[in-house]
Amino acid sequence: MPSIPVPNSTDFNKRSAMSSASPLFHGVVPPVVTPLTASLEVDYPSFARVIEHLIAGGVHALFVLGSTSEVVFHDEATRRKVLEFAIDRVNGRVPVLAGVVDPTTDRVIAHARTAQSVGASAVVATAPFYARTSAPEVIDHFRTLREAIDVPVVAYDIPVCVHFKLDRHTVVTLAREGSIVGLKDSSGDDGNFRYALMDLADRPEIMMMTGSEIVCDNALLMGAHGIVPGLANVDPAGYVRLYDLCRKGDWTGARREQERLCRLFEMVWVAAPRVSAGSAGVGAFKTAMRRLGIIETNEMARPQRALNDAEAAAIETILRQTGLLA
Amino acid sequence: MPSIPVPNSTDFNKRSAMSSASPLFHGVVPPVVTPLTASLEVDYPSFARVIEHLIAGGVHALFVLGSTSEVVFHDEATRRKVLEFAIDRVNGRVPVLAGVVDPTTDRVIAHARTAQSVGASAVVATAPFYARTSAPEVIDHFRTLREAIDVPVVAYDIPVCVHFKLDRHTVVTLAREGSIVGLKDSSGDDGNFRYALMDLADRPEIMMMTGSEIVCDNALLMGAHGIVPGLANVDPAGYVRLYDLCRKGDWTGARREQERLCRLFEMVWVAAPRVSAGSAGVGAFKTAMRRLGIIETNEMARPQRALNDAEAAAIETILRQTGLLA
Amino acid sequence: MPSIPVPNSTDFNKRSAMSSASPLFHGVVPPVVTPLTASLEVDYPSFARVIEHLIAGGVHALFVLGSTSEVVFHDEATRRKVLEFAIDRVNGRVPVLAGVVDPTTDRVIAHARTAQSVGASAVVATAPFYARTSAPEVIDHFRTLREAIDVPVVAYDIPVCVHFKLDRHTVVTLAREGSIVGLKDSSGDDGNFRYALMDLADRPEIMMMTGSEIVCDNALLMGAHGIVPGLANVDPAGYVRLYDLCRKGDWTGARREQERLCRLFEMVWVAAPRVSAGSAGVGAFKTAMRRLGIIETNEMARPQRALNDAEAAAIETILRQTGLLA
Amino acid sequence: MPSIPVPNSTDFNKRSAMSSASPLFHGVVPPVVTPLTASLEVDYPSFARVIEHLIAGGVHALFVLGSTSEVVFHDEATRRKVLEFAIDRVNGRVPVLAGVVDPTTDRVIAHARTAQSVGASAVVATAPFYARTSAPEVIDHFRTLREAIDVPVVAYDIPVCVHFKLDRHTVVTLAREGSIVGLKDSSGDDGNFRYALMDLADRPEIMMMTGSEIVCDNALLMGAHGIVPGLANVDPAGYVRLYDLCRKGDWTGARREQERLCRLFEMVWVAAPRVSAGSAGVGAFKTAMRRLGIIETNEMARPQRALNDAEAAAIETILRQTGLLA
Repeated sequence: MPSIPVPNSTDFNKRSAMSSASPLFHGVVPPVVTPLTASLEVDYPSFARVIEHLIAGGVHALFVLGSTSEVVFHDEATRRKVLEFAIDRVNGRVPVLAGVVDPTTDRVIAHARTAQSVGASAVVATAPFYARTSAPEVIDHFRTLREAIDVPVVAYDIPVCVHFKLDRHTVVTLAREGSIVGLKDSSGDDGNFRYALMDLADRPEIMMMTGSEIVCDNALLMGAHGIVPGLANVDPAGYVRLYDLCRKGDWTGARREQERLCRLFEMVWVAAPRVSAGSAGVGAFKTAMRRLGIIETNEMARPQRALNDAEAAAIETILRQTGLLA
Repeated sequence: MPSIPVPNSTDFNKRSAMSSASPLFHGVVPPVVTPLTASLEVDYPSFARVIEHLIAGGVHALFVLGSTSEVVFHDEATRRKVLEFAIDRVNGRVPVLAGVVDPTTDRVIAHARTAQSVGASAVVATAPFYARTSAPEVIDHFRTLREAIDVPVVAYDIPVCVHFKLDRHTVVTLAREGSIVGLKDSSGDDGNFRYALMDLADRPEIMMMTGSEIVCDNALLMGAHGIVPGLANVDPAGYVRLYDLCRKGDWTGARREQERLCRLFEMVWVAAPRVSAGSAGVGAFKTAMRRLGIIETNEMARPQRALNDAEAAAIETILRQTGLLA
Repeated sequence: MPSIPVPNSTDFNKRSAMSSASPLFHGVVPPVVTPLTASLEVDYPSFARVIEHLIAGGVHALFVLGSTSEVVFHDEATRRKVLEFAIDRVNGRVPVLAGVVDPTTDRVIAHARTAQSVGASAVVATAPFYARTSAPEVIDHFRTLREAIDVPVVAYDIPVCVHFKLDRHTVVTLAREGSIVGLKDSSGDDGNFRYALMDLADRPEIMMMTGSEIVCDNALLMGAHGIVPGLANVDPAGYVRLYDLCRKGDWTGARREQERLCRLFEMVWVAAPRVSAGSAGVGAFKTAMRRLGIIETNEMARPQRALNDAEAAAIETILRQTGLLA
Repeated sequence: MPSIPVPNSTDFNKRSAMSSASPLFHGVVPPVVTPLTASLEVDYPSFARVIEHLIAGGVHALFVLGSTSEVVFHDEATRRKVLEFAIDRVNGRVPVLAGVVDPTTDRVIAHARTAQSVGASAVVATAPFYARTSAPEVIDHFRTLREAIDVPVVAYDIPVCVHFKLDRHTVVTLAREGSIVGLKDSSGDDGNFRYALMDLADRPEIMMMTGSEIVCDNALLMGAHGIVPGLANVDPAGYVRLYDLCRKGDWTGARREQERLCRLFEMVWVAAPRVSAGSAGVGAFKTAMRRLGIIETNEMARPQRALNDAEAAAIETILRQTGLLA
């Protein structure tokens, strides 16, 4: 899978019709952190450094405007600007996937049209939220989205935020009919993910990705094509090493690297329960990235709380223990 | 409590400073259904009829852009137009509360500023959603909202949508410090609601409302000031009767009326599980209102599903059994 | 309901047989605390005092071996002895209902046969637990139990322990066919309880009881026949007053008494989160009863933790504030 | 860990005593199905055949009286007899672990004493259930159990039944202090399991086992010592092959065998939702074992429901597709 196509909105459907046997994307696809200034504006110079840090680490694509990007905290204008900036900065070096996360179908379509218009390689959409839905309505949601736009759709399974699980049958139905080109599974339900992988084994162009930071080796052993770990913002090279070890079949080496990354991931519990799980997780990534000189602040969008100095010190210790600081 | 003040944004804080001992609102405050055309646009002629139907039924205020209004399905422009239309149409006859429901603080503030600018009497806000938050962050959320605007804030507790419960201590803290002027409790946790009522017994200006359709008599017996039943879209006069019976202390009569309304409420299970609980509930109200000649269609915003003819027939039977159709 | 046998242990049941339109039991039915010695044996002298305290308070029946009795901590021999002791001590003054709480049907039947053999007026059974079941299997569970014994069965809905909700349709089906003679609803789902009451309005002999301590007035307003508050171990006379006020239709007076009892009930949060909700609740009742001189210790069955001195002092303050200590 | 006694029933345990750096048990440890007669008694001739089938398949130990054994459906006398029969029949060929599953500490101790007295190699205990507990109380539960008996204790994490999760910190605390010698993780939370494995990497004598049927390769890749799949009742040789492939580091071969077993495992959904998840799962195993000539009936303990003929036919198809029937 040497050449990753960067689709543009016009030729996607043509390629799709040719039925390529490779997934649209693969490899390490970090959900990119959105750094903020002290006044809670997007800090674009820092954002540029994040992008360079990730590409220098060897990642295969970027996922902008995901949960780790604090997407639901940003209004439409900010989302467009963040996405435009990222696509411009990346300048074709890797594909850029765009999260289009909002509660309901038509609002998701509006975000997706923006993403398409600024050149995103794919959009990543969750099931509806706040609204209570059902499996058939969720299927309609993805179908309606797909029909409204001309850019590939990746389904994003994140029940901890959406409170709805994209089960195997929903995923397989949507994939086989062409409504989605892949899945980002952040559910932690490895059994369901495995069955979806097995059910789609004859459709290798469907990209199956895990959102886990801590069982990436398992997911790749089961046949996943990619990994989307928020922690890759801190250590992209580590996840690229992990991915490469798995691709080579060096599962023992992969486990060793994965375990180091698990130790690094413990940063997400440093600030809990003082702050929410959301603040503690992304806040830890931002705090680590500040310490590594990549971004300026560890500010979080309101009403989330930033990590404090004691928590930052604990994270610095973790960075040293896992080899990211001397 | 004969004269309900209709605050405007400039004199609210003055009144508040005078420390009135009455709640800002009281009585029956329906969360107003948003009718749609066959092409899924807002059907304003039908919307006007809904408003007249509710005011003719004797309701004491209107809650526009709540969950029953399918608020999260509407974009900012639509929300503004719906709210402007309602306020214009109501023309001061009753207060108009505006839902400002979106995932995070700054986005809620944006909706609230719009609501303030078009003359809403109060805004109604939930805890953040999609984002995972904690009690201290939820308190910050309401404080930040309150400081950003110049119109009273009502807290909206709806864990079935938001997946966070506004517990007694959060509500009492926010009420006592002036961050909120009231609560709409759609949680079904009557014990928590009772304790909040007891804790705030010395602050009768804090408006405590239940979102239940089926235990309104209980809530009023416990001391609630108002009720916000979605079903009041179908039978506003019934809920006004229920409210008046409770106010008079005729609890036996109130129970009888409440039980009739409970039978009417059974319409929300007609379409389940063919459609989701969200579609089945608001969809039933719309279907009943169509049959009663108030609105044109029973269409639901995407990806929700409208009720079908068989379900509409079952709802018609319920309307007859409960005295709303001859 | 021809096939339901009339239990023969007390005069009460003969009365019941003569009046098929009354529920088998009614009024205040405390779930009786099981006091323990310092070595964690049942403290029978204290237990005798509890029984006298409750009867002196005017309660209408006793529910022995419920959750508040720490039933699942006791083995079969202890359960039998506790029940025999209670029935002997009560000596027909009020009916004695026996909890028969264990995970599965045949084990529940074994407890129920013991209860029947020692003269319990009825048995109180939950849905299966640990085992994962479904609504049809739960219905079979109660039917099989009913067929195996010759004493009335009360269904006990306590999803916080059993993790299964006895919904309206299950309760109504079982009641109409004669498998159960009543319901103890400890679910907190007042809407479901109201619908079950309404559905069974033509069957007044079906006894509908709430397990709530804090919305008893609501339950009685909705038509419940009885209340089963664990807190009645501490203040039986208070709950009898509340019940009598409701029966007289003095809902304002009832609310006042209910609110005092709500303040008393706040004892259950004194020890949380140091200990579990289970330990904090029953532990608070035991601690209060020790302070009132009814029982000797506040020990809890293993692995629960007893309340400490600081917590006991806080509970003493609550007893003073609510008029139970001078 | 000086105070942990070495069980004396088998040569295996002597080996274990000689090598303190090995886990007490390892490999494939099926939770043994308990076959029933048409009159719902334990069918001992069938049970004997199950045991021989498992040992012939090459399994490394047996886990009797687990959830798959329908343990909570059996009374104390039955449990003792089942365990005695198994130990007698096995006759030292492999270790026999005994489930001691009941709601509370002292009742678990009673079962554990029986298990010890009849020669079980270890007991397997869950957190308390029905009773609401907390992490410190759960730790006390295991400590109290450990102190009361003279046989090793394995912690059994099965939140779907117990509704309490044994998190990493609880497991590690109990293991390091010698209260438990291992863990059976049936939680599906692979991340938590991985961290417990990492935290105990310096204590290889602590036996870490997964209860999964479908991600055994993942668990073994992460360092687990054993697997406890209910499906091994149907295909013990398949799981032994899977285990051996993992031990050899043939992860590609392991994945292939695991995927075949995943296809076989799909039998557990054949009867859902007609029957509960519990009935559908163990019921499917029994139905498959009946078809394979190992047991006489597919009866389930009450109130569970046995699979019907159509479901049995569907399972037969699965057996053919996965190579277990010609």
